[in-house]
Amino acid sequence: MAKNITKKTINYSQWYNDIVLNADLAETSAVRGCMVIKPYGFAIWERLQSELDKMFKKTGHMNAYFPLFIPKSFFSKEANHVDGFAKECAVVTHYRLKSSDSGIIVDEEAKLEEELIVRPTSETIIWDTYKKWIQSYRDLPILVNQWANVVRWEMRTRLFLRTAEFLWQEGHTAHETKEEALEETELILNVYADFLEKFMAIPVVKGRKTESERFAGALDTYCIEALMQDGKALQAGTSHFLGQNFSKAFDVKFTNKAGKLEHVWATSWGVSTRLMGALVMTHSDDQGLVLPPNLAPFQVVIVPIYKGKDEFEIIDKFCCNIFKNLQDADIRVKYDKRDSFKPGWKFNEYEVKGVPIRISVGMRDIKENSIEIFRRDTFEKSKCIETQLIDTILQLLKEIQDNLYKKANIFLESNTHVVDDFEKFKEKIKSGGFVLAHWDGTSKTEKEIKKITKATIRCIPFSPGQKGKCILSGKPSEKRVFFAKAY
Amino acid sequence: MAKNITKKTINYSQWYNDIVLNADLAETSAVRGCMVIKPYGFAIWERLQSELDKMFKKTGHMNAYFPLFIPKSFFSKEANHVDGFAKECAVVTHYRLKSSDSGIIVDEEAKLEEELIVRPTSETIIWDTYKKWIQSYRDLPILVNQWANVVRWEMRTRLFLRTAEFLWQEGHTAHETKEEALEETELILNVYADFLEKFMAIPVVKGRKTESERFAGALDTYCIEALMQDGKALQAGTSHFLGQNFSKAFDVKFTNKAGKLEHVWATSWGVSTRLMGALVMTHSDDQGLVLPPNLAPFQVVIVPIYKGKDEFEIIDKFCCNIFKNLQDADIRVKYDKRDSFKPGWKFNEYEVKGVPIRISVGMRDIKENSIEIFRRDTFEKSKCIETQLIDTILQLLKEIQDNLYKKANIFLESNTHVVDDFEKFKEKIKSGGFVLAHWDGTSKTEKEIKKITKATIRCIPFSPGQKGKCILSGKPSEKRVFFAKAY
Repeated sequence: MAKNITKKTINYSQWYNDIVLNADLAETSAVRGCMVIKPYGFAIWERLQSELDKMFKKTGHMNAYFPLFIPKSFFSKEANHVDGFAKECAVVTHYRLKSSDSGIIVDEEAKLEEELIVRPTSETIIWDTYKKWIQSYRDLPILVNQWANVVRWEMRTRLFLRTAEFLWQEGHTAHETKEEALEETELILNVYADFLEKFMAIPVVKGRKTESERFAGALDTYCIEALMQDGKALQAGTSHFLGQNFSKAFDVKFTNKAGKLEHVWATSWGVSTRLMGALVMTHSDDQGLVLPPNLAPFQVVIVPIYKGKDEFEIIDKFCCNIFKNLQDADIRVKYDKRDSFKPGWKFNEYEVKGVPIRISVGMRDIKENSIEIFRRDTFEKSKCIETQLIDTILQLLKEIQDNLYKKANIFLESNTHVVDDFEKFKEKIKSGGFVLAHWDGTSKTEKEIKKITKATIRCIPFSPGQKGKCILSGKPSEKRVFFAKAY
Repeated sequence: MAKNITKKTINYSQWYNDIVLNADLAETSAVRGCMVIKPYGFAIWERLQSELDKMFKKTGHMNAYFPLFIPKSFFSKEANHVDGFAKECAVVTHYRLKSSDSGIIVDEEAKLEEELIVRPTSETIIWDTYKKWIQSYRDLPILVNQWANVVRWEMRTRLFLRTAEFLWQEGHTAHETKEEALEETELILNVYADFLEKFMAIPVVKGRKTESERFAGALDTYCIEALMQDGKALQAGTSHFLGQNFSKAFDVKFTNKAGKLEHVWATSWGVSTRLMGALVMTHSDDQGLVLPPNLAPFQVVIVPIYKGKDEFEIIDKFCCNIFKNLQDADIRVKYDKRDSFKPGWKFNEYEVKGVPIRISVGMRDIKENSIEIFRRDTFEKSKCIETQLIDTILQLLKEIQDNLYKKANIFLESNTHVVDDFEKFKEKIKSGGFVLAHWDGTSKTEKEIKKITKATIRCIPFSPGQKGKCILSGKPSEKRVFFAKAY
């Protein structure tokens, strides 16, 4: 199968697509821009989802579910919000089909009085609901998350990275004070960063978006940005401080402790199946997908190597035994004893699918009490005796997880350049990576830089930095910001 | 709060609605027919979902995700299928909004070439996908499930029981042979029945649907039916043998072991948020929701009873300790020490929400080393010393789970009547419950009985029964079938 994967250096974008397809993660469907997430890809998404969900619950959030459809009029209530989403809305106009001479057609008699929008994000329908839930400070905070599908009608789509329909989680919280809402915005950004770094082995930079890159309807957008192997940045998660924009638009007030009516303060935040794209592009190589053990549906695969029935019986017994031992040690393990595929085919299959560790067992291994262990990230092989197998595997899984993070972090650091001169800036942006440079804080300069170099400001770091002069305008700058070309 | 719950005997349907609302399970939204599942209701759904998901995985199934939208033309490919769903389809016709003098309107220039249907069920889009996945018998079986939202434009909706949008799981499997597909259909029906009985404490009857009640596009539909407290049946889950209908409609063939091309055999099966309705209507009483411990987001709630700060400090320390001990024993427990609500208010709140066990702790209880335990299902109170708390609670949770099942099963059995005479039949149907009666096997008689009594055939038992004569036509009958009025 690896033969079907284009080399990264030859065509990065084709390499990405080849891995998504060959590792059985996802494929395009008959519906324009909508993908099918295949069982193996979905199993990774489930791992990711279950871990994030735990983190949300540990920080006091609960899940709920809100309608898929949003009445068109709701969008008009927050001016920036509608501007941001109107151009990519899937619109439901009818509720019935009927038979006709030319086949099945839309029944014009079943036209909706008000069109419904398939949610591109749920702030409006949720704040319409929160109006009913919130009367007093006793009803606050509301810390709710939703796992859902959303639709944004994108013209140019790519599997996981940009699809018309995607899966995500969207948190929507309501608070008594501005401070509390800001704390929540930051808390979640840190949850996201921790999750990517510790669980997905993806290092990120954190910061706030410029005004022009903010979420439509937010007062402030915090984000985490990761760096892909082609030197382009990928926005991996955002956490928005919405101020009182939505509570004002939907007239959600509460009686505060002093008995006074006030508008509620809000945040919203989300990550999506886009993370699957980040995962592929951070760790994979020309042989296929590389998975951090934490996310791997199978951390270990066992492949028996035998000739004939007699050998199989001996080896199968041995493999069943180590399979059971690994399972008992809470290691996610698959034993592939299918007879219809050769060991070589299986080796390749699991390399393409990024299974962190492969154990292969032949007659000689059993005789010599020496099990062969192959690690996907470095292609190293080692031997181990049966009694030490569990410890060795547990240790190795940890090592692989750490190694992937370390490798990605070295890549991020060695591809982050501090630049003070515009010629150098253009050169570095062209060759890829983050460029830390001074900016005068104006949208005009931001736009001009984007026009010349295609680079955008990925984020403004939170920590105070060194003052300096804008690389383009030469005007004063408070601190350096992260520039990059981005997905 | 219980004051807000209408008595079951006064108005059953209002009683149901009052519980759903007062227990904070769900509410209607601004979008016609679409509900909001509130955090507490969703936590129950998550429990239910996670257990079912485990059962699917144990039986070899994997999850995947398919597009929300289905091209209109896909529906026409299976004639019965389109007949069944055309009248309740939400149709997407445009992909953009724009500003105008009269506000935000649909952009007529952004009209789709082919309309998209919001999935009411996914057989068509999935079989279009399976065509790409299946070439040889080596690719079979495919055992895939999807957790998703679906939309069926119902005119008369009720929270959980019938909503325009609902959440469900839909399994879609592909097999080499008819026998294998039939085995799968039965396997899943048994998974559903086990799940309802063991986990939800809801007894069910199993059987097959009559032709007129079959899933649109199936050759056979198996179902489980539960009996609600008002004597009406509720279809709780269905498992369909689809034969080769969809593989023929989408031209999905495979090379069998003999090297011959054949159409693939299929099943599909699902349960939905409707189960939440069944849960409410099986166990609840006039005080509110009653939850089987297996499904309860909190199995135990601890309420401190104190006057003043000094008492609170002593009691809080004691409660924190038992809270921790219960948590360590893997019991889902909530400690409600909110100062803004009185103990009596909390007692009522958790009774309405169906928390199986309440522990209340006052000064005297600490002094006497005697903790008061209240069980929601029987309203019985008992006392227990601290060192025996964990064992007592674990035992009690098991007892409550068993008791709820037993109670529901007695209700089911005492409301299942064997009847051989049509006058008696009408009488029994009127007073509620299942009626086991002979039927001549024709749609005509089935329709006639429904017209006269509003009763439908809920299912035909699998096991062979006694022969007899149809209660309406007097013609020969193979065995008795289950009749009831239904949701």
